[in-house]
Formats: sequence, C-alpha cells, structure tokens
Amino acid sequence: MAEASSKFPEVQGGGSLIIAWQIKGKRVLVVGGGEVAAGRILHCLNADANVTVVAPAARLNPEVAYRVARQQVTHVDRNFEPADLDGADMVLVAIDDPAASTAIWTLCKQRRIPANIADVPPECDFYFGSVHRDGPLQIMVSTNGKGPRLASLIRRFIADKLPPDTGRAIERVGQLRAELRRVAPLPADGPRRMAWMTKVSDAYPWDEMCGLTDEDIANLLTFFPSGTVPSLDVLKGMRANPDADVTDVFDGSFGFSVGA
Amino acid sequence: MAEASSKFPEVQGGGSLIIAWQIKGKRVLVVGGGEVAAGRILHCLNADANVTVVAPAARLNPEVAYRVARQQVTHVDRNFEPADLDGADMVLVAIDDPAASTAIWTLCKQRRIPANIADVPPECDFYFGSVHRDGPLQIMVSTNGKGPRLASLIRRFIADKLPPDTGRAIERVGQLRAELRRVAPLPADGPRRMAWMTKVSDAYPWDEMCGLTDEDIANLLTFFPSGTVPSLDVLKGMRANPDADVTDVFDGSFGFSVGA
Repeated sequence: MAEASSKFPEVQGGGSLIIAWQIKGKRVLVVGGGEVAAGRILHCLNADANVTVVAPAARLNPEVAYRVARQQVTHVDRNFEPADLDGADMVLVAIDDPAASTAIWTLCKQRRIPANIADVPPECDFYFGSVHRDGPLQIMVSTNGKGPRLASLIRRFIADKLPPDTGRAIERVGQLRAELRRVAPLPADGPRRMAWMTKVSDAYPWDEMCGLTDEDIANLLTFFPSGTVPSLDVLKGMRANPDADVTDVFDGSFGFSVGA
Repeated sequence: MAEASSKFPEVQGGGSLIIAWQIKGKRVLVVGGGEVAAGRILHCLNADANVTVVAPAARLNPEVAYRVARQQVTHVDRNFEPADLDGADMVLVAIDDPAASTAIWTLCKQRRIPANIADVPPECDFYFGSVHRDGPLQIMVSTNGKGPRLASLIRRFIADKLPPDTGRAIERVGQLRAELRRVAPLPADGPRRMAWMTKVSDAYPWDEMCGLTDEDIANLLTFFPSGTVPSLDVLKGMRANPDADVTDVFDGSFGFSVGA
C-alpha cells in the first residue's frame, strides 16, 4: 500500500488555484481610477472584457484617462453606487477607502459576483500575479503574497530565458490543431487526432514549430491518415522549393531543444 | 496626443485573465473520477480546498481512489445529483457524458457557481494550465487552448532554468515582510515599509535571499528605522560568527543575478 502510494504526487498545500478566467465579452466593473486600477484594466482588456470604470474624472490617473479617451473602457464619472453591480460578471475594487471597499465586497458576495478588493486579502476571491504575454502564451507568476516585487523579477527572468519565437511556435501548433479538426472533424476521430498531435510534438522541438510555413502545415497534414510524422528534413524536402532552407526563418533559434 | 499615448502599454486582446483563485477551506465539487478529475483534484488540494468527488467507486482511477482511501477528499459513491451543488463554491466536471455535463453547467450558471466542464470550452468560466510549484512560488503556463502539451513542455523548460532555491528565497522575503509588519505594525507605516522593502530587493539579487539566516533577517530589520539597507557583506559581518560565509548555504547558486 505504501509502495503503491509513492507513484502519486504528494499534496503540497498553501498554494492557490491558478486559472485562466474567461472574460471575453463579459462585464467587468472596476471601482477606482488610480494606478492599481490601471493595471487591472489592462489585464481585463487583454482578455477582451467589456470594462466599466467607476470613478470621479478628477481622480483618473493618466493611463486610465487615456483608456477612457480612447473608448477602450466605459467611464462612469462619479463614486460607486450599488446599482453599478447590476449585470456585472466580475468586480475589481482599487480605492483608498477601507469602509467603502468592504461594503462593495459584501454586496458582491450577496450577489455571488467574483471580486477582488486590492490590498485586502480576506476580501478577495482571487489575487493577481505578474504576467508575461507573447501572443497566445501567458505565463503567470504568483508568490502567493510573499513578494509581489519578486514575482515581477521572476517574470522578467523567465521572459529573458524563453526563445524569442515562443508565441509564434504556439500559434503554429494551434493552427495545426485547428486544421486537423477540419480534416478529421468527427468526435470519433478525437483519440486519433490526439495521438497524432502527441507524435508531432514528440518529433519536433517545440520552439522549431514557429519556422513551419503554411505549406509545411498542409504537407504535414497529409501524413495524418497514416498516423506517421515525417522528420523536419523530409517535410522541408516536400516544399515547392525544397532549397528554401527551413532554418532561414528561425532567427538563429533552430537546434534549440527542451532541457538542453 | 499620439506622442503621449505611446507611454502606455498597448492592449493585446485574445488572452485570458490569469488569476490565483483562493479556495482554502472552500467546497469544491468534482464530478467524475478519471484521469482528468485526478489532475483537478490535486490542483485543488494544493490550494487547501475541501474537495468532494462524486463518481461511482467502480469508475475511480487509481490516483483518485488513493486520495479517497487517504481521506484527502470526500467521496460520494454514485452519479451526480443536483443537490450535490448545495454549498459548492466551485464545480469541476470531468465525465464522458456531454448531455449530463451540459445539464450540470446550466445548473451551475443558475446558481452562479464558477464551473469548468473539461473539454467543453464554451462551458467553462475558466481553464486550467500547466503549473510549476516550488513552495510559495506558482508559475502557470497557458497557451489559451492552442497547445496543452506545449504548455507542459514550456513549464518544464522554465522549471529547468529557475535557480534551484527560488522557492526558499521567496520564503525568506515573505518572512522579512511579515517581521517588518510586526516591527512597524501601523497602517501609517505602510508607505515606509514598502519603500524599505523596495530598497532591499534592489540591494540583493532575488535568488540570494534564500541564503539569509534567521539571524540575518533580525539584523537586517535593525536597519529599517534609518531607512537604509546594508550590503550583503556588512550583513554577514554582523553574525555572531562572521566567519560563517554566507555562500556556504547557497548550493553554488550564489552570484547568480537577474538577466545575467
């Protein structure tokens, strides 16, 4: 029994559940217009939310004022009122008024609206971290409140280490998956699609995927029915102009491989 | 106007809002007991949630059965029933029954319970990613659905690059922040605390923080009233036994610095 148990990961308590919340087209209410609010607003816009900012115009910081002027967000030029919560899918509060903050938190909990009251950990359904973004790739660093500045330093450290074309490589893999679903659309094809995609990722180092052209993706798909995956050299040789070396488009990152 | 605008970050749509959800002591209902459920359960236990798994005993995979046997989760030995949602703070569904999944999703939305239906993106308030964990540090990699396997490869790539003592360094910074709050507990001390912590993180490379001893932390705190931060050498010289070189505890990672 003890033997068998060792093959499963040990529970390591004390963490958070880190999740990618989907707020595309959802209504996010931001209460406050200072620097913290500005950061929250950008996070939400990067996730395609409909953002409403409630704060007196005089208190908007330059970045928030800029987003209002560009109509990236809807602005309500006054202090918070409870009716602002009507229809809100998420509420982010960043004001210097603990009593008002707590009142908003209480209202959110009554209405079961996920909320974050900045700097008041017990009044938060969730915390923010430091996020690196490169196209479809998002990497979030959380220190679970131990060191917010450290989170930001570690995020920059990671960004420096990642191959420059990581985002583009992920786009290519996403494109391959999408086209595969067109070629083999049935739910019954699911396991075969998954098995083949696994073979593809085993065959090519992930960062090399960014060097594939649309033509390469089309050629690669012709191997799906046989369940095989060609080497990169074979794939390259299938090009209309096979002399166009695939390495030409790699910005020197060709040959890099995971863990090397 | 166009000039001024350039100083603010551009919005890059198409992402998610990556957040650290707080589920310590909260009730998470997991419907299903297969491999996907096993992964979800571990994520939730690592965040100190109270997890209930609803699935017939015969369908539990070995890892889920192990967690049930160890009483790490509560097990309800049958298929899902709507009353299972009573009191649930979050619902994670991982069953091979699209109709039943959709029915659970609909009930969750009626009750405003955050939910994730595995493999059904439109029926998810949030997605999962690949998470690296090292003590208080959590790093989550999301490809926003473009390549789940890639997310896992990138997570491993990052884990390889991070200095081995990163988690311990963060613990030390957290300890320093906590003790500082004891030394200067008033809300009015907040700005001074923050300014001094900033000085500390500017003075020491983040990964070197793990080498500090409890004695070092106590000595470092004596500098707070003056608003100064000693060099690492000075701090080391203050030890009862200053000959104990601080590098001795660094496992060779001493001297590493961000971006080097």
